[in-house]
Amino acid sequence: MTRVVRQLAVIGCGLMGGSFALALRAAGLVERVIGHSRSAASAQRALELGVIDATAATAADAAAGADVVLLAVPVASTGATLLSLREVLAADALCMDVGSTKADVAAAALQALGPQAVGFVPAHPIAGKERAGIEHADAQLYRGCRVVLTPTTLTDQGRTRRATELWTALGARVETMTPQSHDVALAAVSHLPHLLAFAFFQSVAAQPEGRRFLALAGPGFRDFTRIAAGDPALWRDVFVANREHVLRHSATFRAELQRFEAALAAGDPAVIEALIAPPSAGRATWQLGAPSPAADRESDPPSSPQAPAH
Amino acid sequence: MTRVVRQLAVIGCGLMGGSFALALRAAGLVERVIGHSRSAASAQRALELGVIDATAATAADAAAGADVVLLAVPVASTGATLLSLREVLAADALCMDVGSTKADVAAAALQALGPQAVGFVPAHPIAGKERAGIEHADAQLYRGCRVVLTPTTLTDQGRTRRATELWTALGARVETMTPQSHDVALAAVSHLPHLLAFAFFQSVAAQPEGRRFLALAGPGFRDFTRIAAGDPALWRDVFVANREHVLRHSATFRAELQRFEAALAAGDPAVIEALIAPPSAGRATWQLGAPSPAADRESDPPSSPQAPAH
Repeated sequence: MTRVVRQLAVIGCGLMGGSFALALRAAGLVERVIGHSRSAASAQRALELGVIDATAATAADAAAGADVVLLAVPVASTGATLLSLREVLAADALCMDVGSTKADVAAAALQALGPQAVGFVPAHPIAGKERAGIEHADAQLYRGCRVVLTPTTLTDQGRTRRATELWTALGARVETMTPQSHDVALAAVSHLPHLLAFAFFQSVAAQPEGRRFLALAGPGFRDFTRIAAGDPALWRDVFVANREHVLRHSATFRAELQRFEAALAAGDPAVIEALIAPPSAGRATWQLGAPSPAADRESDPPSSPQAPAH
Repeated sequence: MTRVVRQLAVIGCGLMGGSFALALRAAGLVERVIGHSRSAASAQRALELGVIDATAATAADAAAGADVVLLAVPVASTGATLLSLREVLAADALCMDVGSTKADVAAAALQALGPQAVGFVPAHPIAGKERAGIEHADAQLYRGCRVVLTPTTLTDQGRTRRATELWTALGARVETMTPQSHDVALAAVSHLPHLLAFAFFQSVAAQPEGRRFLALAGPGFRDFTRIAAGDPALWRDVFVANREHVLRHSATFRAELQRFEAALAAGDPAVIEALIAPPSAGRATWQLGAPSPAADRESDPPSSPQAPAH
């Protein structure tokens, strides 16, 4: 049985932080939740919605006396926020973030917390919703989702175990890896798709006939571009933090796109179908949260990464 | 009040054809449905499911005596199928297809039917489902969806009106345009996204760490790649038929992607955010079936199309 959290501090009362608080409450695993947001209105709204029990004027006020601290702030703010907690973090507290990049967060934690980084476990719950904000906080958000923990070089193993226990108790499946290993994988399956969706939507919308084209778009377009509505400030931070991996995967993608374009230009139906068949079969068997049995193309070595052409 | 169809012929008993039959039945707008499929099993299954009243051994047998004929076959088979109907099509019958490309279908119809093309109305219902096949046929599939009609140079206006009446009676919103105008728009909002989704999925799956990456993919990836599971034969035909428009839009997309990549490489957060903001706002206000009010980027002329680099 997981130990109950006496006092949880949520720094950043939005979808992710609010859902963590609600899920712990629903599981009977937290006694008291203190929330802080840079926007006082969000914290006030979280209080009114019963997501938190009290608001705090500063992140440090929220974290003082907490045994678990969850940072749910833009990744670029992680360092500054942790620095402000340095004086108040309890020696045995577990501190986590929920950011989409992890190497930058781990580095920022080591720099901001110094030896206190023993208590910091960088975390990335791979969950989300079409709409952000505390109003959409959901006790079930993390059920069945994967949570990646990427301990820093100083992180204490007991704290990583405690983090694993808590996320597992909320129904998540926890995996531990290095921050670098996380970032290269997420660049491929999350950050690059966002980059492509932003660029694709813009490339259609900015055309002289863009409005007419968009009016004829159907359900496939809707799903393909859903992530293009992502928050600009959040994705700015992710792209800045993880740009090397993203650019490398983008170059690999462009090389593959070029193979498809060349096949279309040549116009040989059999060649085109042979290119479509592997991803079609691979995607048809892929399932959210399960390893894909069709992830490798047998007959064809992967294209070697090439430098982006600028 | 729309005139009831005495005999509907469905050539190709799959999701699209089956749903058309079910929807007409649900609306009380058809007396008898005859189905034919290249695969006898599909037609048999349609009969068992009550989607059709009888099976026919050939497309011509199904169409003989029908006042409405719906072709729901791969676009590349349209010409050959229509040729086989030439002797049996009633002089006043309405004949339609449901293909994703229209210039090739219109041309095939003129060639296969000659003067009988007066009765042919190329149609594209912009609807779909995650799963194809007669088992997923759905009387509600076309409710609220857009149906584009692209009359050939010979198509009789009365037949286009009749087609408009029928689709409207099923709850669809009908728009009429030239086949070329349809194809350039659908290349942008449907065919290119499929090409990108196939290439993207493959570019991830084919990497040495592809399986590990795919296992960490979340809900954003799921939606972005849903269309990568599209049927290889169907998309082969679409790409072959509409490759010029698709390649042109792909070049425009690559130019936009290069702007994003250049911004990431330079690493200026403000520039990156300024690139993300327009598509994010545009996609947030875009709605399925409604014109997008944010389709134009005011501050920035669209990139001029460039030839694909091979």
